[in-house]
Amino acid sequence: ALKELISEYHPSEIAILFESLSQESRERIISILPAELASEVISEMDSEFHPEKLLENLHPERRSEIVEELDYDDATDIISQLPEEQQREILQELDEEDASNIRSLLKYEEDTAGGLMNTQVIKINEYLIKKDAIEEIIHQSEEMEEFYTINVINDQNILLGIVSLKDIIKARNNVRIKELIKSDFVYVKADTDQEEVAKLISQYNLTSIPVVDDEMHLLGRITFDDVIDVMEEENTEDILKISGVSEDEELAGNWKEAVKSRLPWLVLNLGTAFLAASIIRYFDSTIASLGVLAGYMVIIAGMGGNAATQALAVTVRRISLNDLSDNQAYRTVLKEFTVGLINGATIGFIVFLFALFYDQNPMLGIVIFIAMTGNLIIAGIAGSAIPLVLKRVGIDPAIASSIIITTFTDVFGFLLLLGLASKLIL
Amino acid sequence: ALKELISEYHPSEIAILFESLSQESRERIISILPAELASEVISEMDSEFHPEKLLENLHPERRSEIVEELDYDDATDIISQLPEEQQREILQELDEEDASNIRSLLKYEEDTAGGLMNTQVIKINEYLIKKDAIEEIIHQSEEMEEFYTINVINDQNILLGIVSLKDIIKARNNVRIKELIKSDFVYVKADTDQEEVAKLISQYNLTSIPVVDDEMHLLGRITFDDVIDVMEEENTEDILKISGVSEDEELAGNWKEAVKSRLPWLVLNLGTAFLAASIIRYFDSTIASLGVLAGYMVIIAGMGGNAATQALAVTVRRISLNDLSDNQAYRTVLKEFTVGLINGATIGFIVFLFALFYDQNPMLGIVIFIAMTGNLIIAGIAGSAIPLVLKRVGIDPAIASSIIITTFTDVFGFLLLLGLASKLIL
Ligand SMILES: [Mg+2]
Ligand SMILES: [Mg+2]
Ligand SMILES: [Mg+2]
Ligand SMILES: [Mg+2]
Ligand SMILES: [Mg+2]
Ligand SMILES: [Mg+2]
Ligand SMILES: [Mg+2]
Ligand SMILES: [Mg+2]
Ligand SMILES: [Mg+2]
Ligand SMILES: [Mg+2]
Ligand SMILES: [Mg+2]
Ligand SMILES: [Mg+2]
Ligand SMILES: [Mg+2]
Repeated sequence: ALKELISEYHPSEIAILFESLSQESRERIISILPAELASEVISEMDSEFHPEKLLENLHPERRSEIVEELDYDDATDIISQLPEEQQREILQELDEEDASNIRSLLKYEEDTAGGLMNTQVIKINEYLIKKDAIEEIIHQSEEMEEFYTINVINDQNILLGIVSLKDIIKARNNVRIKELIKSDFVYVKADTDQEEVAKLISQYNLTSIPVVDDEMHLLGRITFDDVIDVMEEENTEDILKISGVSEDEELAGNWKEAVKSRLPWLVLNLGTAFLAASIIRYFDSTIASLGVLAGYMVIIAGMGGNAATQALAVTVRRISLNDLSDNQAYRTVLKEFTVGLINGATIGFIVFLFALFYDQNPMLGIVIFIAMTGNLIIAGIAGSAIPLVLKRVGIDPAIASSIIITTFTDVFGFLLLLGLASKLIL
Repeated sequence: ALKELISEYHPSEIAILFESLSQESRERIISILPAELASEVISEMDSEFHPEKLLENLHPERRSEIVEELDYDDATDIISQLPEEQQREILQELDEEDASNIRSLLKYEEDTAGGLMNTQVIKINEYLIKKDAIEEIIHQSEEMEEFYTINVINDQNILLGIVSLKDIIKARNNVRIKELIKSDFVYVKADTDQEEVAKLISQYNLTSIPVVDDEMHLLGRITFDDVIDVMEEENTEDILKISGVSEDEELAGNWKEAVKSRLPWLVLNLGTAFLAASIIRYFDSTIASLGVLAGYMVIIAGMGGNAATQALAVTVRRISLNDLSDNQAYRTVLKEFTVGLINGATIGFIVFLFALFYDQNPMLGIVIFIAMTGNLIIAGIAGSAIPLVLKRVGIDPAIASSIIITTFTDVFGFLLLLGLASKLIL
């Protein structure tokens, strides 16, 4: 009964249902589903919920059945998460063709085109005529859920171009595929970074992209649905990194993983917070003789941190969507300088008025105005220049997290406010 | 010569090139390109770079030529950015069919399925036999760049299901389309939010999704490539909002737009910063009699802000990828409470040691330990509960920006540290 009920759902719906079930319930359901549906459910599970764990306790025969139903790319992703011992065990149980396909895919880095591709592709020889080509395509597609483009190769498996099923059908009856080839097509090498693959799929609106080796031998294809998952993954990475969370913290992970992922960043920041505190200590006689400075100190540091976070978010996001030229990078920093100047002067003026009328201390107001403006200028420059420089030297710009940048502005804001106050007021 | 050179590039490449050219150069290039290529370039331009401005100064005849080459969905997006006066002018110049299609699309909200769909679809009657169906599909696809699925309708234009070209070709010769229909397909209503559309495309790995009205009349289709753009747009929105930047700030915009987008948030935050400062003022005698408190104050507020930002990022991202059940939401807050407790106690202990050995003040160390732990617990609860509650009441959780949350922890941290210090130490 449960089996019938569950079989009515789409695999991705069952995969989502699994997220709120215990490991035992997941295993029980997988064990009763038809092998094909079970494999689809497993392939649709988010890696955060560890689909590989569902394979561990299955009977070897049942397990092979399910793994053989998986697309090679999904099988590879899932198996690669298991310890080597178990990987070997599972691969031994599989039929030789499947095992060797998966073994070859396991060699590629996870976040490259090779790590994303599926070796199951539709490929036809350039010399086929229409009728034979269609027959061949239908034959090859039996094993495949979906296909989007047809790869045309020569006798050496060199990729010559692509063609669509529609164009073949529209063509006259005795046409050779050679004549229908679209030869200015987009492809990637196996070691291309997955972010680059995602950019190409998005830019050229591709349903799939062929993967080749250095001699243009066709190795496989990457489909848009897997690239959509990559994009979401990369976006998660960016939003976590920019907020001072390790990129591999699982969103639905438990508190132990969260502590492991976040505590190191907090400790790093504690070091820089001590630096900011040491500046305050250095000026303790200044603060002692003008008590209201403590409150203004907090306002200036807070505003600096916020302005830096704003500049950082806009810059990091811009870099991750586009590659900026040197000139564009320069103009970005210049823009953030201007924004910092104007926002700083505006906010500074409001606080100046407060010091003037509430504290009746015009000189203090002027010091605060200068410190606020200076701090927001620094915030803008740091928030934009640091990620741009990191990108240029090959470090992920999102690592310039708001944690690091805001401490930077804290230190600078305190120096400016307390330094000026000690010189000009006392 | 320039014309030949440029014509060799893919439209999306020219669109990217445009980003670093002046408005005049863009207009000049558009004016010399063949109308079809010009229209593709315009449709590939990011809305941030204002493709609509390229239409403004064109000769009316040339403009109609280009607009008529655009897909209806792209034409609608671009024209909708112009003032009403100009919209009417452009629509009058078009042929009646194009104009009426665009007019009907202009009625839908930009961020709904209706605002994303294209009315050009492949649709065939359920009673067609294979041969006629293929002929009809080829005929309908002449006008279209790409199509992915074929919609099957009855005589009343009611959508009955979908079918793939492959399945039609594989079927026996005299089959009726009716027999090939996949009737458990995914579709959306025209007023469905674009984020929901993106979730469906991603969950079900769809190349396109049909859009229907309340009576299941087929209105159009949304394709995966436009949904990829929606995802990037929504991710930009989240990363900006969470960092206290208005969602509609253009990443490549000028300083004026940036000031307009960010200053209101800074002013809002200034209000809360004054609140934090007023707490410090309230305790000014405490600070005056124990000067080192000023430095510790800054450390506690800084760590609280960072911990809150971490919890916020993980929670906001999790909400935007999945809908959380009440139970999952409850467990998320509980987890963040635990993380705050452990991280707070760890960081608090380090700072306690510092107060003990450097300042030789064990009681101060204990106060700091308690304040740090309490503040990081509050940071975890606020960072997770606030976005979850906002989501529940229908407000975008990303608006719980780190700006608001960190001020919250500032205020609480100062209260805890200074309140405890004034009670326990002095
Ligand atoms: Mg893989
Ligand atoms: Mg695109
Ligand atoms: Mg795949
Ligand atoms: Mg997949
Ligand atoms: Mg990245
Ligand atoms: Mg990455
Ligand atoms: Mg639209
Ligand atoms: Mg998917
Ligand atoms: Mg479109
Ligand atoms: Mg498009
Ligand atoms: Mg959103
Ligand atoms: Mg939105
Ligand atoms: Mg701060």
